Amino acid sequence: MAGQGDEFDLIDRIRRRLGARADVLLGIGDDAAIVQPLPDHQLVVCTDTLVKGVHYPPQTAAADIGWKALAVNLSDLAAMAARPRWVTLALTRPDADANWLDGFLDGFLELAVAHDVALVGGDTTSGPESITVTALGSVPAGQALRRDGAKAGDDLWVTGTLGDAALALQHWKEHGQIDDVSLASRLNRPTPRIAFGLALRGMAHAAIDLSDGLLADAGHVARASSLGLELRADRLPASASLAALPAPQRQLLQLTGGDDYELCFSASVQDAARVQAAADATGTRVTRIGRVVEGAGCHVLDGDGKRLQLAVPGYRHFAQ
Amino acid sequence: MAGQGDEFDLIDRIRRRLGARADVLLGIGDDAAIVQPLPDHQLVVCTDTLVKGVHYPPQTAAADIGWKALAVNLSDLAAMAARPRWVTLALTRPDADANWLDGFLDGFLELAVAHDVALVGGDTTSGPESITVTALGSVPAGQALRRDGAKAGDDLWVTGTLGDAALALQHWKEHGQIDDVSLASRLNRPTPRIAFGLALRGMAHAAIDLSDGLLADAGHVARASSLGLELRADRLPASASLAALPAPQRQLLQLTGGDDYELCFSASVQDAARVQAAADATGTRVTRIGRVVEGAGCHVLDGDGKRLQLAVPGYRHFAQ
Repeated sequence: MAGQGDEFDLIDRIRRRLGARADVLLGIGDDAAIVQPLPDHQLVVCTDTLVKGVHYPPQTAAADIGWKALAVNLSDLAAMAARPRWVTLALTRPDADANWLDGFLDGFLELAVAHDVALVGGDTTSGPESITVTALGSVPAGQALRRDGAKAGDDLWVTGTLGDAALALQHWKEHGQIDDVSLASRLNRPTPRIAFGLALRGMAHAAIDLSDGLLADAGHVARASSLGLELRADRLPASASLAALPAPQRQLLQLTGGDDYELCFSASVQDAARVQAAADATGTRVTRIGRVVEGAGCHVLDGDGKRLQLAVPGYRHFAQ
Repeated sequence: MAGQGDEFDLIDRIRRRLGARADVLLGIGDDAAIVQPLPDHQLVVCTDTLVKGVHYPPQTAAADIGWKALAVNLSDLAAMAARPRWVTLALTRPDADANWLDGFLDGFLELAVAHDVALVGGDTTSGPESITVTALGSVPAGQALRRDGAKAGDDLWVTGTLGDAALALQHWKEHGQIDDVSLASRLNRPTPRIAFGLALRGMAHAAIDLSDGLLADAGHVARASSLGLELRADRLPASASLAALPAPQRQLLQLTGGDDYELCFSASVQDAARVQAAADATGTRVTRIGRVVEGAGCHVLDGDGKRLQLAVPGYRHFAQ
């Protein structure tokens, strides 16, 4: 941990809130943490940064920032079918505000406890507010889900509903606030689909988490798998808030809105009932939104199966 | 990887410069990387952030920033006697400047190649410039070095020379540049003592890397080990640049100057010849600067062994 003014106070504040765990041999407080990987498992590693004013509106509550900084990383592990185990937290703030930190930790640790994730190390530095979390998960050798495994003929599925975070952001930009509580929660407190991701081991052929919008992210699966995707615009799952919108506006949000942190995955048509059973068992809404086809690219079909010509701009974070 | 404007271009630029490695099953380009830990080894994890204007002067060359961002993390692994294996890179920049990125990668990858470290993932985001690296290393079970293992009677040692980075920073603040090339290199291109750290396994009792200054960091060893330390001011190793200074100014820099990234460690008096042999074998300068004693705190002695009364301010990064 590199030094700064009140760094040690902040670190002590963090340490006081952490419990012990058998696979954490040495936690926060030395040059590095020591953890014990499982035998015959592979380690899954991801890192995501949230920058104030880029990835969340400046007035976002500290607890929501804490939750989201961890959630976006756990979502990446979920998309790999990895079980989250350890995380590090690099926190940069212009000041050492203990109230803000306590709020941040409330949200961060609420989610960490829910998924049995241990915070094992990090760094606190002085500078413009941003948070980088690195998450480490484990997966039995060979069982991770990747983007490049889709097979022609597969069903394409998504969890949850689409476009909510983007609509919330739109409300915030237009009104300076988000009155719809459920929409605000979708933006500020995304749900990493950990349990369902684990259930997809041995069942899904490819998976990705939706951070940049369905079209952009499904496009990664198509490219990595050297196949095409057909998405049915009329089948995209909508929350009540989205369902109230005219179809063109709704579908644009569902296709291009970012920050949903749902999973998009492909599985054999023969496994549709198994997928649904796994979803039911984990309390996860799932929807078959299309299929994997020979060819390339991500194509949107109307209710009659005809390809639509869409001119949708790529997703950009709100400040860009 | 969360999205932004030119993120994918930057990531492609990074990917094109990386080689393959057997313990990296899936590198940059999916939701997360997959790596293969060694059996019977523990995983050592650390994270450090560098913020422009806080941890390095704004005009620092991109290649030096790349080197230093990795070096400060490898130094933490060295202090644990861990062998570096994988790193992630979270890079935040106000623009997607390909020239800057190429320079950054020149420095980052030069050091990564030198220590056989694989860059396996990361995130590029838009915002005020900062870099967070998370480094993962491995150590045979139970062989990591910690801060809390010092024993009364141990010799206290440091690698390299002390105070150079702080003097370089002083030159930069006074003159807007650092004419002394060797000093500049000590500030911008610190040397993580990896090979020597590995050689300390089974020999050193406690170790720490010097990022915040000798007194501050040795103080952590004293506290963690519930013992005291006596440092001989006349024995602190000095580079030629430091040796040219009057003793009081030199010793203040050596005792409190940060950013040296040398190792400070304790070992049995009986092992002094082994320590020196390990240093010779790895081309590392080492100096016995004091000893571990009963009691508490970090005490500075003069050449006659008398305790000095020092009023030294704690180390602060230059912008604070």
